[in-house]
Amino acid sequence: MADITLKKLAELLNLSISTISRSLNDDYQINQTTKDKVIALAKELNYQPNPYAGSLRKKGSKTIAVILPEVANNFFSLAIDGIEEVAQKNGFHVLIYLTHENYLKEVDIANHLMNGRVDGILMSLSSETNNLEHLDKLIEKGIPLVLFDRVSDKINSPHVTTDDFEVSQKATEHLITAGSKKIAFLSLSRYLSIAEKRFKGYSSALKKHDLDLDEKLIVSLTNSLEENYENIKKLIIEEKPDAIFASVESLAMTVYEVVNDLKLKIPNDIKVLSFSNLRIASFLAPSLTSINQPAFEIGRQATSILTRAIKYGKFETPLEKIILKSELQIRNSTV
Amino acid sequence: MADITLKKLAELLNLSISTISRSLNDDYQINQTTKDKVIALAKELNYQPNPYAGSLRKKGSKTIAVILPEVANNFFSLAIDGIEEVAQKNGFHVLIYLTHENYLKEVDIANHLMNGRVDGILMSLSSETNNLEHLDKLIEKGIPLVLFDRVSDKINSPHVTTDDFEVSQKATEHLITAGSKKIAFLSLSRYLSIAEKRFKGYSSALKKHDLDLDEKLIVSLTNSLEENYENIKKLIIEEKPDAIFASVESLAMTVYEVVNDLKLKIPNDIKVLSFSNLRIASFLAPSLTSINQPAFEIGRQATSILTRAIKYGKFETPLEKIILKSELQIRNSTV
Repeated sequence: MADITLKKLAELLNLSISTISRSLNDDYQINQTTKDKVIALAKELNYQPNPYAGSLRKKGSKTIAVILPEVANNFFSLAIDGIEEVAQKNGFHVLIYLTHENYLKEVDIANHLMNGRVDGILMSLSSETNNLEHLDKLIEKGIPLVLFDRVSDKINSPHVTTDDFEVSQKATEHLITAGSKKIAFLSLSRYLSIAEKRFKGYSSALKKHDLDLDEKLIVSLTNSLEENYENIKKLIIEEKPDAIFASVESLAMTVYEVVNDLKLKIPNDIKVLSFSNLRIASFLAPSLTSINQPAFEIGRQATSILTRAIKYGKFETPLEKIILKSELQIRNSTV
Repeated sequence: MADITLKKLAELLNLSISTISRSLNDDYQINQTTKDKVIALAKELNYQPNPYAGSLRKKGSKTIAVILPEVANNFFSLAIDGIEEVAQKNGFHVLIYLTHENYLKEVDIANHLMNGRVDGILMSLSSETNNLEHLDKLIEKGIPLVLFDRVSDKINSPHVTTDDFEVSQKATEHLITAGSKKIAFLSLSRYLSIAEKRFKGYSSALKKHDLDLDEKLIVSLTNSLEENYENIKKLIIEEKPDAIFASVESLAMTVYEVVNDLKLKIPNDIKVLSFSNLRIASFLAPSLTSINQPAFEIGRQATSILTRAIKYGKFETPLEKIILKSELQIRNSTV
């Protein structure tokens, strides 16, 4: 069978090539009945747009890139579900790129996307990312960029986050109320604004309850599982905290491993609380007190902002900065 | 600053444009010292190849697509790590596409990749996939395709799997030895060859121990978390199995939820065993007896086969069919 072209579709439907093309690109100037008819026939005949020709003609590839630190993390896999839901409704394919928390990899991916390979980008920064030139360059090239969760206020783009300061303050106060006086804080990185906000929530709760901030109780995440294990072990042995607040999901399980290996009991010897969207938090021994972020909704809203910007050729001004609420779920690891 | 072109790089290094281009494409005819020099300068000057021009000239996009059912699953996230390790060494970008276990989505993604958007494809089939025409079409178009884990023998491509029959037989025998006589089996789908192999391992162990195969004890996974919950609940209430063998990771936690909601005790009232690469299997209450697949190594080997095929323009013949060994880890949910 010969390849189906726009011209062929136009002939079969007795419409202009331009109407066919604009229908397939979901142009708002074409009425929905016509669009539906065109899309139905294109699907039936398995019409394949030529992506390169399309891109050269600046029609867009109908593709969104999602740049993430990792996927072995329930927060990000739920966010992807939210992203895909909105992307699919708007006819976009979703490509996922992983940085593995590596700044150079993030730069490499940004460069790879610089030449219009995708219509827009959703992104959550790696924990190593401090210099933001690679993102400024994407914005200069006119590629729509929306950040979510791990954002930076230094980037001129819309973003979607949660109430990191407030919920971290609330979680720390919960530990203090439950009797903790020496609360260790496991941080994502000092570069990211969410890490800073979570840390400020923690330190403001300490201050409110007249507890000293002790730098020796603060440990930053590295890229290595083994290093994180050793750093947390050292922290517990040397500083003997009575509680640990993990500000990042992947550290919660490492804490359980260390505590178990040191033959300590949660919550009697040490309380544990973590940011986490793990579905199994309630089935852990003991069940984990966690901060649940609305990950699905974060993905949904970030994608709505992005697809609207792609459709209308620009972001709404002022740039949207959306803050959603997280939830503290108290379980047996703290009480 | 003017854009850096191949010509500019050639001038600066006093080499031919063809040598520069072939060095950047890792051509085996160029010696490594020259390649290193070219790559170093290209990186230093932030040389950006034009992906569309490159593709039109059939030079390849240096990109691999990975099509997966989901990422909220430790098996796939570990496999991605293995894929990325090998891809990175060979200079390929990795794009991840998710089918969410949906056959139509899988076809849509395959069509999207039909026109040479990527150099090769790694893939694990969705549980709904029965018709394989979309993959035959990719192969006809000359796009290298390697399947892993959820493969089909009906596809003419290399694949990497584990010893699904043997380890499932061993796991079932473990349950029988531990005293189970009425073992329910939770299956991924009847279409996939791994589902069939796991089921055959289960039924062959029953036969060996003179236990009847009861169709009422077999439940197939659907795409809905709620449906899976209800089906497992119905199974436990109506059939009263004394053990459950979940042949797919995502069902293990649903079983824990149902058993907990029915106020039954694991392993006294019902034993539970599952395929799982969950790092937290040992911290569940009770800890989960699991079959661990070498997910990282599966990803690594599948990617090695693919990158070699991309480099040499063809697969080795006969097509490689690699089988790796899984491991049964006995914990408190069965003994």
